[in-house]
Amino acid sequence: MKTQLKEILEEVRAGSMSVDDALLKIKEQPFADIGYAKVDTHRKIRQGTPEVIYGEGKTPEQIIGIARTMLQDGQQPILITRLQEASAALVGKEFSNLDYHPASRIGIIGNWPEKDGIGKILVATAGTSDIPAAEEAALTAEAYGNEVVCRYDMGVSGLHRLLAHMDDIMSASVIIAVAGMEGALASVIGGLADCPVIAVPTSVGYGASFGGVTALLAMLNSCASGVAVVNIDNGFGAGYLVSRINHMEIKK
Amino acid sequence: MKTQLKEILEEVRAGSMSVDDALLKIKEQPFADIGYAKVDTHRKIRQGTPEVIYGEGKTPEQIIGIARTMLQDGQQPILITRLQEASAALVGKEFSNLDYHPASRIGIIGNWPEKDGIGKILVATAGTSDIPAAEEAALTAEAYGNEVVCRYDMGVSGLHRLLAHMDDIMSASVIIAVAGMEGALASVIGGLADCPVIAVPTSVGYGASFGGVTALLAMLNSCASGVAVVNIDNGFGAGYLVSRINHMEIKK
Amino acid sequence: MKTQLKEILEEVRAGSMSVDDALLKIKEQPFADIGYAKVDTHRKIRQGTPEVIYGEGKTPEQIIGIARTMLQDGQQPILITRLQEASAALVGKEFSNLDYHPASRIGIIGNWPEKDGIGKILVATAGTSDIPAAEEAALTAEAYGNEVVCRYDMGVSGLHRLLAHMDDIMSASVIIAVAGMEGALASVIGGLADCPVIAVPTSVGYGASFGGVTALLAMLNSCASGVAVVNIDNGFGAGYLVSRINHMEIKK
Amino acid sequence: MKTQLKEILEEVRAGSMSVDDALLKIKEQPFADIGYAKVDTHRKIRQGTPEVIYGEGKTPEQIIGIARTMLQDGQQPILITRLQEASAALVGKEFSNLDYHPASRIGIIGNWPEKDGIGKILVATAGTSDIPAAEEAALTAEAYGNEVVCRYDMGVSGLHRLLAHMDDIMSASVIIAVAGMEGALASVIGGLADCPVIAVPTSVGYGASFGGVTALLAMLNSCASGVAVVNIDNGFGAGYLVSRINHMEIKK
Amino acid sequence: MKTQLKEILEEVRAGSMSVDDALLKIKEQPFADIGYAKVDTHRKIRQGTPEVIYGEGKTPEQIIGIARTMLQDGQQPILITRLQEASAALVGKEFSNLDYHPASRIGIIGNWPEKDGIGKILVATAGTSDIPAAEEAALTAEAYGNEVVCRYDMGVSGLHRLLAHMDDIMSASVIIAVAGMEGALASVIGGLADCPVIAVPTSVGYGASFGGVTALLAMLNSCASGVAVVNIDNGFGAGYLVSRINHMEIKK
Amino acid sequence: MKTQLKEILEEVRAGSMSVDDALLKIKEQPFADIGYAKVDTHRKIRQGTPEVIYGEGKTPEQIIGIARTMLQDGQQPILITRLQEASAALVGKEFSNLDYHPASRIGIIGNWPEKDGIGKILVATAGTSDIPAAEEAALTAEAYGNEVVCRYDMGVSGLHRLLAHMDDIMSASVIIAVAGMEGALASVIGGLADCPVIAVPTSVGYGASFGGVTALLAMLNSCASGVAVVNIDNGFGAGYLVSRINHMEIKK
Amino acid sequence: MKTQLKEILEEVRAGSMSVDDALLKIKEQPFADIGYAKVDTHRKIRQGTPEVIYGEGKTPEQIIGIARTMLQDGQQPILITRLQEASAALVGKEFSNLDYHPASRIGIIGNWPEKDGIGKILVATAGTSDIPAAEEAALTAEAYGNEVVCRYDMGVSGLHRLLAHMDDIMSASVIIAVAGMEGALASVIGGLADCPVIAVPTSVGYGASFGGVTALLAMLNSCASGVAVVNIDNGFGAGYLVSRINHMEIKK
Amino acid sequence: MKTQLKEILEEVRAGSMSVDDALLKIKEQPFADIGYAKVDTHRKIRQGTPEVIYGEGKTPEQIIGIARTMLQDGQQPILITRLQEASAALVGKEFSNLDYHPASRIGIIGNWPEKDGIGKILVATAGTSDIPAAEEAALTAEAYGNEVVCRYDMGVSGLHRLLAHMDDIMSASVIIAVAGMEGALASVIGGLADCPVIAVPTSVGYGASFGGVTALLAMLNSCASGVAVVNIDNGFGAGYLVSRINHMEIKK
Repeated sequence: MKTQLKEILEEVRAGSMSVDDALLKIKEQPFADIGYAKVDTHRKIRQGTPEVIYGEGKTPEQIIGIARTMLQDGQQPILITRLQEASAALVGKEFSNLDYHPASRIGIIGNWPEKDGIGKILVATAGTSDIPAAEEAALTAEAYGNEVVCRYDMGVSGLHRLLAHMDDIMSASVIIAVAGMEGALASVIGGLADCPVIAVPTSVGYGASFGGVTALLAMLNSCASGVAVVNIDNGFGAGYLVSRINHMEIKK
Repeated sequence: MKTQLKEILEEVRAGSMSVDDALLKIKEQPFADIGYAKVDTHRKIRQGTPEVIYGEGKTPEQIIGIARTMLQDGQQPILITRLQEASAALVGKEFSNLDYHPASRIGIIGNWPEKDGIGKILVATAGTSDIPAAEEAALTAEAYGNEVVCRYDMGVSGLHRLLAHMDDIMSASVIIAVAGMEGALASVIGGLADCPVIAVPTSVGYGASFGGVTALLAMLNSCASGVAVVNIDNGFGAGYLVSRINHMEIKK
Repeated sequence: MKTQLKEILEEVRAGSMSVDDALLKIKEQPFADIGYAKVDTHRKIRQGTPEVIYGEGKTPEQIIGIARTMLQDGQQPILITRLQEASAALVGKEFSNLDYHPASRIGIIGNWPEKDGIGKILVATAGTSDIPAAEEAALTAEAYGNEVVCRYDMGVSGLHRLLAHMDDIMSASVIIAVAGMEGALASVIGGLADCPVIAVPTSVGYGASFGGVTALLAMLNSCASGVAVVNIDNGFGAGYLVSRINHMEIKK
Repeated sequence: MKTQLKEILEEVRAGSMSVDDALLKIKEQPFADIGYAKVDTHRKIRQGTPEVIYGEGKTPEQIIGIARTMLQDGQQPILITRLQEASAALVGKEFSNLDYHPASRIGIIGNWPEKDGIGKILVATAGTSDIPAAEEAALTAEAYGNEVVCRYDMGVSGLHRLLAHMDDIMSASVIIAVAGMEGALASVIGGLADCPVIAVPTSVGYGASFGGVTALLAMLNSCASGVAVVNIDNGFGAGYLVSRINHMEIKK
Repeated sequence: MKTQLKEILEEVRAGSMSVDDALLKIKEQPFADIGYAKVDTHRKIRQGTPEVIYGEGKTPEQIIGIARTMLQDGQQPILITRLQEASAALVGKEFSNLDYHPASRIGIIGNWPEKDGIGKILVATAGTSDIPAAEEAALTAEAYGNEVVCRYDMGVSGLHRLLAHMDDIMSASVIIAVAGMEGALASVIGGLADCPVIAVPTSVGYGASFGGVTALLAMLNSCASGVAVVNIDNGFGAGYLVSRINHMEIKK
Repeated sequence: MKTQLKEILEEVRAGSMSVDDALLKIKEQPFADIGYAKVDTHRKIRQGTPEVIYGEGKTPEQIIGIARTMLQDGQQPILITRLQEASAALVGKEFSNLDYHPASRIGIIGNWPEKDGIGKILVATAGTSDIPAAEEAALTAEAYGNEVVCRYDMGVSGLHRLLAHMDDIMSASVIIAVAGMEGALASVIGGLADCPVIAVPTSVGYGASFGGVTALLAMLNSCASGVAVVNIDNGFGAGYLVSRINHMEIKK
Repeated sequence: MKTQLKEILEEVRAGSMSVDDALLKIKEQPFADIGYAKVDTHRKIRQGTPEVIYGEGKTPEQIIGIARTMLQDGQQPILITRLQEASAALVGKEFSNLDYHPASRIGIIGNWPEKDGIGKILVATAGTSDIPAAEEAALTAEAYGNEVVCRYDMGVSGLHRLLAHMDDIMSASVIIAVAGMEGALASVIGGLADCPVIAVPTSVGYGASFGGVTALLAMLNSCASGVAVVNIDNGFGAGYLVSRINHMEIKK
Repeated sequence: MKTQLKEILEEVRAGSMSVDDALLKIKEQPFADIGYAKVDTHRKIRQGTPEVIYGEGKTPEQIIGIARTMLQDGQQPILITRLQEASAALVGKEFSNLDYHPASRIGIIGNWPEKDGIGKILVATAGTSDIPAAEEAALTAEAYGNEVVCRYDMGVSGLHRLLAHMDDIMSASVIIAVAGMEGALASVIGGLADCPVIAVPTSVGYGASFGGVTALLAMLNSCASGVAVVNIDNGFGAGYLVSRINHMEIKK
């Protein structure tokens, strides 16, 4: 943003832009306002980075409107998270290249970018029921240009199942640990791995699991160092963050 | 209790006890009322079983009064839990054979019973800070006639430390797993052991550990089957229960 | 597991197994990986012990796949908990010997093992509405080879109903106390019985019962010693644990 | 209040009171404003009913000021609840007839009224540590003219201790059940008694007792009908309410 | 119960009852065991007191079974609370005299008893949406032989509406205050009335009303003395308790 | 109210009103009692102020009844909040001029008043999903005679979108900030604006947003001074309050 | 801020400011960075508006450092909230004109501004213990140039005490309602007043008041329209907001 | 760990290690058991990586014992977190080169490693009171070989203060955002930065900040993508994790 500001100021100084135009530019440039939403058109500069639409609480019409604005702006792929099956059907009518994953409720319009991250991302789940959140994380990371390996049902109640994946754990550059119930997977992986671990608590469980709160709290209190946590069932957030980690750069 | 009732009824029938005496007996017999407390004098029948005084919220005078009543009734050893250091000093003046453990705040008056349980009890902790609750559990189990093995600082963040105690885990007849923070120890031990596991959440931790609530919830949601949980920092309760388990008998 | 490790090392030493094969064996042996799940095939060694499938959050196809892998491995009976009625219909098409209990949502494939526990297990409920959780506990315990006695509607608001079952309470080797609302049943039974008591809070109640949280908290704070607690509505967990208690053995 | 209003209006009509005086009277009459407090002087009409000062968060000076205003108005006895020991010393210097109870932190200035309630009030506690709250309830009820019987340490973990007091339970006209931890006393007494039961949860306990919240919730969910609950440790509130119940009258 | 025990003992002494018969009598007499429920048949002694069936979580078949056992025992009227409309239809087929109130989900079989309480009961609500819980309270109190006056929509946001009912408040012998949201009605009525006030928090509200928890907490913290609280939406519990209060008797 | 009281007293003095009539007048005047509701007819004095019906938990019949009473009293416009679509259909049959907004579930009967507030009200939302609550606030404020400007999707994750509306923020006389999730919009606007800011937390979000509780708590803890908060999704409350603020007057 | 930006751009255009200087100016101008704090020096433009230092968690040295920076910038009066007594002593040594209020823990350096608000602000408390929070609100409002009237101990349990202040309520332009316990004062005042009401929940109470949470929740759920809420014990926040309301202006 | 296992197996095969020695080695090697703790001696292989001692709940003697074991093993620097001032004095007597930071309660024994991370780490706080947690994070990151930049008091209530640090935000490779109260800093930075952001909620605040829970929840619900969260006040955890991120490597 600072760079843009400097350019605008330079133009003002050079007389090639009026003060009022400059003010207008600062205010209006980086998004398109379509009433119910302000679509960020700023990200396309960094080629290949998909913009994301959070589908929950939006009508299919709103989703289509936002996606259309983004495509007109040249952005792709477009990731739509929390996209209900019924909405997906309508969105799919508008965009025939929509790739919809019902379990993780993710829809993708457009093509995968090249995999250009530093290393491999491991997405591990404690149980079979945690797969949807894991899939959301994995698809997100892939959509942002990362190589992803998925290993499911590694829960700590059968430690040998987890230890059997020591190779995957040790060769990953970043790990996403997905677990509901007591969420102990994050602690055990955190204690074994020597790379960053992002934990995703899931709403899998019943009774005193309180819809994922127990897993969330347990992960926040992990006795293993080097574990950070995202919101319950927030596979997207984890996938997005590990992509940032996996694309770390030196800045001057 | 039923047996006692039958005996009283038999005496009533035989005319050796009046109806009013019977009523009185049913009401008054199994405890001694000393005003601020009703001391259970019924347990002495089963030789060697210590009675327990919960020290919190009782004045030293009340503790001494209850202990004196129990000793007059022939009960020993007497276990006093949650006994503050200051109170212990006063109680120790009255009962010179008081054996006081400041870390776990347990006081014991009298001699250990014979170790007559079925097998060995393992008391395992996740960290160094969990030792006081573990000690309360271990001392209680010993006071009830059990052989106890203690292994500390086995937390899951260094899995090799836990695996190094596989022998202890596999040779225990019952296990008490003591952990604060995210309480994952219970799940991992629960998945490895083939004996009953009683989990004790501790108040060790900070922030979102909420004084042990996170460990408690995590343990209740253990993905490993065969784990039950007692109150936060309730080493006594765990020690008492595993003693019952370790003294299981066939009944007719 | 240690024994297995020793055997593998012996074979390596004897030259009858290569180092790489040994590594592979350690990693791959104790389960079958079918993608969405890792099926534990290790338990069949101990004849008669049923493996369990937690049905919630699994598709009927996944349940069938896991069950098939287990049966191919020779395991039976298979316990499926939290099996929805609709899923049960599909699973029943695949396995004609499925025995489904709609109230407790338990499905069982295969035959009951012999009842070889130490004593009798009493499953007691406070009210009529607690029966499903109690049934889950009782069926689980039976599936693991235990004799089970069920007594329903013994709630403390009518103490004479509870006292009428003094015989059952005193003759049980382990007791499962199932109650919702204020969960006082666990405390009262805990005060009367001289055997281990495992409490199951249920989601029965309304308003400030918070879906079983009040019963859970009350049971954790039981003034009676010797009571441990499992998750809300976790009949299976209680049944599994009391079976372990009822099959306690001396270990060397 | 309505009666007073009518009288004022009658005087206005009769011309014996001006409109402005009437307005003033309606506004100013029923209390004395001493700046930091408005002392209710309205209750003295009903002879013998003590006024109450809630001591917490008030300076000794404020307490003395309020008490002095009440005494000038002829009110007595005066009940001061939650009166810290240090404050009591200062208040006692001002009012030499202060009767202070340190355990329940109640102070009383003036003489007991006659015991003119319908029947007897039973105050029962689960344990020794619940006595302070019970004492607050009992003293309050006595200060309001009721006959009170106290029975301590009747907790449900030793049911025979409770049953031994069946006489007290059956002969009470109202019962106050005081308990911490899991608060089961209220349910058991509620199931045995045939009179109104007011439950007082106490902050006795630790860990998941959450300073009395568990007992509070349990009592609110009592499976016994006819139990209502007051705030944690609110012995005063219970004593005040049962006095109202014990002084019930027919109104026309 | 004590009286019955004494009679049994007298018969044993007189030789007119054997010891075994006495034991049996003590255990079996006061209820009928129909498997899924133990029906209390003890209450019929006190003529006119209806027994209550808590309908939630019971099948229509179970409700009918319990009701039939009670009618055979001569009990009536029978109150069925939380009776779903669909269940009511089936129960009504069995008992043609079922009187069903859909808003409060109460069903009554049999005739009203005589109104023999000490005074009048006022049931007051804060809003229109609180009426179902109020109706449950009012019908319960009537079924137990009390005269009941209902005043709805008296919420404190329009104080004049509340003050307009000063007559009802001052002439009531007991008051039930029913309110959701912030539950301030209980405090205001508690400050105006000079009789016992039982508060019923309702689940009316949204957002931070947390299904009635806010009203519950507010009522427990009422600054007005003499208010006790029952569970959220527990109109029955309030109706039952005020009936006990309104039928207070001197006991010897 | 005081003014009315004085007038009544004056008439009593003048003899033009009897004491009993005066009493009646004080009690009955300011509302119409239609059984299930007391309709406030007092507000019509201040011309143009609409009365409000909270639709939740009321039957369509009750809503129609209340509205009819209000219209007979000359009040309009009538605002009906939380009006379900099905109810709106029935209400619309009775009042053909009903203007219903399905997203915000608001219905309005009658004409808008003149916009006579001090300045402009800005209603800003963090995201698209917050629009229904914002619309409820905006429509309410308009119905009470205010000029309202709406700006949607200004969430802090894209700060430039917010800064682009600096003009709107600086020119508003009062601001309503509507946000779910972490609710940071209130803090950022609170830090930029120099007018009163009323924050509306919404239930937008998932997992640890707890139905709006997180946004609510965040807004209450805003590091920006000058922000107050209403209940979750309470657009009406915010709209009503800002109207009061925007109609502030000097009083003598 | 926009105005400032425009001015800078104008200067850049005019050539009187270099692009780099402009960038610097935008970044550095509106505050002074003293390492541990960034002191806002921007507010002095609007004469008479005091800057505020939140004292909690700051060392006396930091407070003195910030105050000195502000005074050098010409700002006064300076309000220091949550200033501990010990800190106040040290701060008072540095600034001899410090005016410290121990009960409300507010310190003020410098002179009161002129009272230039629209109308009068009423600060009302439910009880004597709520006075410190009320005083914080009142002093803040006065420091920002408002006329404030304080009325204490108006709690709803004695409604006549509240009604006696109808004059104050009706003549206020804005009201701050301060209450702990059940916080009903906000609802009752909200129903009586026709001006904006800002509610301050206090931590006054015990047990289930949860340090002010109950009052907070009750106030958020007020059945009276037009009430907004600030954080628990946040007298400053309420005082600041009502000052903004009382200084409302038309903007162009 | 796998590598070590392979080496041991190779030696067993080669006959240079017996089976029993191998078993022993696997169990005992990677830590030193000193009774109350198991000190990890495994990490020294990776030169320069400090081991950490969590000081809370450990006696000074235990801390000294663990540190001594580590130093004997050649590990340094040693980081001691949550080290109380009194303990630090005792530890400092034993290790004269202890560098103790009282505000952040961190102690360091030994020399800083070389700064060899990928880029710069920015540690930003919302306020002055958040500095201790920030300092814990910064010192930890430095102890692990990272270049760290600290910027304090950038809270969103004064957005210009935050924007003034755009340079720091844009030039950081990883950011730690430290904030209490409503924690909005994480969302605003998350929306501006294009690198990973780790949020540290602090216990700064009062009332409904609940000791940091509000900030924690807000950060978990951040509307900005790419933000993960650690426990309340867990500066160490954040510092450790960002060091891992800043030392990301490609693995084969």
